[in-house]
Amino acid sequence: MDMPARPRVFSQRAQKLTSSTIREILKITERPEVISFAGGLPSPQGFPIARIRAAFDDVLDARGDTALQYGPTEGYAPLRAWVAEDMRRHGAQVTADEVLIVSGSQQALDMLGKLFIDPGSRVLVEAPSYLGALQSFSLCEPEFVAVPTDGRGLVPEAIDEALAAGARFIYALPNFHNPTGLTLDLARRQALVERCARFGLPIIEDDPYGELRYAGEPLPSLLGLGRAAGATVVRLGTFSKVLAPGLRLGYVVAPRDIIAKLVQIKQATDLHTATVTQMAVHEALRDDFLAEHLPKVRALYRRQCGYMLEAMSEHFPDTARWTRPEGGMFIWVTLAAGIDTGRLLQEAIARNVAFVPGAPFFAGVEPQANTLRLSFVTVPEPRIRAGIAVLGELIRRADAA
Amino acid sequence: MDMPARPRVFSQRAQKLTSSTIREILKITERPEVISFAGGLPSPQGFPIARIRAAFDDVLDARGDTALQYGPTEGYAPLRAWVAEDMRRHGAQVTADEVLIVSGSQQALDMLGKLFIDPGSRVLVEAPSYLGALQSFSLCEPEFVAVPTDGRGLVPEAIDEALAAGARFIYALPNFHNPTGLTLDLARRQALVERCARFGLPIIEDDPYGELRYAGEPLPSLLGLGRAAGATVVRLGTFSKVLAPGLRLGYVVAPRDIIAKLVQIKQATDLHTATVTQMAVHEALRDDFLAEHLPKVRALYRRQCGYMLEAMSEHFPDTARWTRPEGGMFIWVTLAAGIDTGRLLQEAIARNVAFVPGAPFFAGVEPQANTLRLSFVTVPEPRIRAGIAVLGELIRRADAA
Repeated sequence: MDMPARPRVFSQRAQKLTSSTIREILKITERPEVISFAGGLPSPQGFPIARIRAAFDDVLDARGDTALQYGPTEGYAPLRAWVAEDMRRHGAQVTADEVLIVSGSQQALDMLGKLFIDPGSRVLVEAPSYLGALQSFSLCEPEFVAVPTDGRGLVPEAIDEALAAGARFIYALPNFHNPTGLTLDLARRQALVERCARFGLPIIEDDPYGELRYAGEPLPSLLGLGRAAGATVVRLGTFSKVLAPGLRLGYVVAPRDIIAKLVQIKQATDLHTATVTQMAVHEALRDDFLAEHLPKVRALYRRQCGYMLEAMSEHFPDTARWTRPEGGMFIWVTLAAGIDTGRLLQEAIARNVAFVPGAPFFAGVEPQANTLRLSFVTVPEPRIRAGIAVLGELIRRADAA
Repeated sequence: MDMPARPRVFSQRAQKLTSSTIREILKITERPEVISFAGGLPSPQGFPIARIRAAFDDVLDARGDTALQYGPTEGYAPLRAWVAEDMRRHGAQVTADEVLIVSGSQQALDMLGKLFIDPGSRVLVEAPSYLGALQSFSLCEPEFVAVPTDGRGLVPEAIDEALAAGARFIYALPNFHNPTGLTLDLARRQALVERCARFGLPIIEDDPYGELRYAGEPLPSLLGLGRAAGATVVRLGTFSKVLAPGLRLGYVVAPRDIIAKLVQIKQATDLHTATVTQMAVHEALRDDFLAEHLPKVRALYRRQCGYMLEAMSEHFPDTARWTRPEGGMFIWVTLAAGIDTGRLLQEAIARNVAFVPGAPFFAGVEPQANTLRLSFVTVPEPRIRAGIAVLGELIRRADAA
């Protein structure tokens, strides 16, 4: 054709999309010589491959017709029942019809954005918060408002009538937070749900790592505490960290009227989550499999975390502070004011070490450019020690500059 | 708590959601005594269960670590390459980086809505069109405009400068259309892509059923014709109908700049499609498996379609007209003007027969209340004949009223 093509017309929201910093970093870290503390990948050593293989086998063998057919949008009923029972075991009274199965908990974030956010709606987030949630909510063009946090996580007392006014929800990660690794203590959890109940502010509790606790005592979920306090809590869970992320399987627990709306949204979004995967995961979970499996994963993560904390104590200067996670995958580092971890990353990559600078995790507030996130779970011990030594050297040099 | 909960505040788009008519009908049809021509389920007799089971086995056995880990948002590279090669085999020059793997083609509709539609954007659709697409696009609040159609499908000549002005795209199903069963002939395809090229109007070509042709000759895709004519074509395909829908696996083929934006959207939507499923499907497709498998599925669908057309000729009155599909799963029936198929459905359900009334498939135009959709693929022959006999009787009675 000799006529020029009309320039593409994308939606406003699509025009605002930019490539994620982390995505760009992860591309660099694919080079095998790079020691990467940047990724959020769980350790494949924790994947119960044989168990999952046997589960797919059993399901396709015995019930292939059902497993390969379209299924209900709400999810595979026995898996919904399993989730409800798991919630009850953890102290929250939940029934199967309050559970919706989703294609990984990232999908739940997308659907909750569609459910709650109009352009300009106020959304309360921790600062820093999970980048994937910020990106997902951003597609619905909210106004992010940061809830003040301190070294123990979000400060419930900061949520007052003015902050809550008109807010559609607060999004929080109470366990082994991504990116900070912090866990909200019981008193703050209780204060949070009471304030949210008082102001009628729904809570989205995102808990991908809760089962990966390797130190300290388990704490009640915001779901359990919130229901007792009369708060609306939407809880997100996932099988990505207790089984494997390549399955893309998660769930939402919420009051029935919210589940009903989410089911309509899910139908328009992807009809339903893969039947065969839901059935196989339900099969794999049988006979209390996680009770046998999770201790191994926790021991692995505890060791890996220990290696990194040890190396940091040895190599990082006193000007650096960092969190000591009781579970999960991440350590959050705060360097001396004035150090820009974006620049530090360039130097680190030149030395074949990678991490994620903290700035992209902040929304609704000035980013703290002197912060960074380290992930310890997939790197072998000697490389953890070598990589941390390099970072220590670069931080000391930045301190001196 | 003694304070009343604040009423829920949902987004504008969520408030507009209503339960789908088809969803409600499908609930009724779950009763085993109901002869249902309502569903859009493929026949499980066409699922290659053993092949898929062996594929999951092989993949988890040999490459479990990779299969269960997070993967690239774009999709599993060998599967993208397979899709590109499949397109080339069908006459469209496509490279693997123009392919994005999605969690069923319904997800592609959701993502394309996010990419192209602002509130109030004009979107051109056939009347009638696929209900799932209308629902999905609706979440982005477009203004639907119906493109005139006749007994041969959409009328390309009706797309003029005025209709195309400001439209974000036209959405079309050229093969064995859902719900009409119609196939757009070559002259109309050519005219469509030429007009769209001239007006710079992107085409979304949805082709879930293209491989299920059991009569007539295959026609070139809008993708192939459109690329030659300088039109922007985004083509959606799926493994739901050639392998099995419970896998939730589909793909988008589009120019690189569109794929790049869709990748950003997909990342915020669900990170990526399940790695294990992509690898298993790629494994199942090896050695030209579809060349051996599809003829069986086509033969099955041809027989089923034949039973229904035969029974309709026998039992339906002359006042009824219907399409004769060359493939796919649906027959579209137009009754005498004045008959309301919504009311007819109530009578049919009282006689344990179900179908889908045509009205919900119309957007941007007055619905034709005297239309209905019949699906023939999953009902055994005697029940097809019995169910069509009942419908014939009810239609005659409605004609007489």
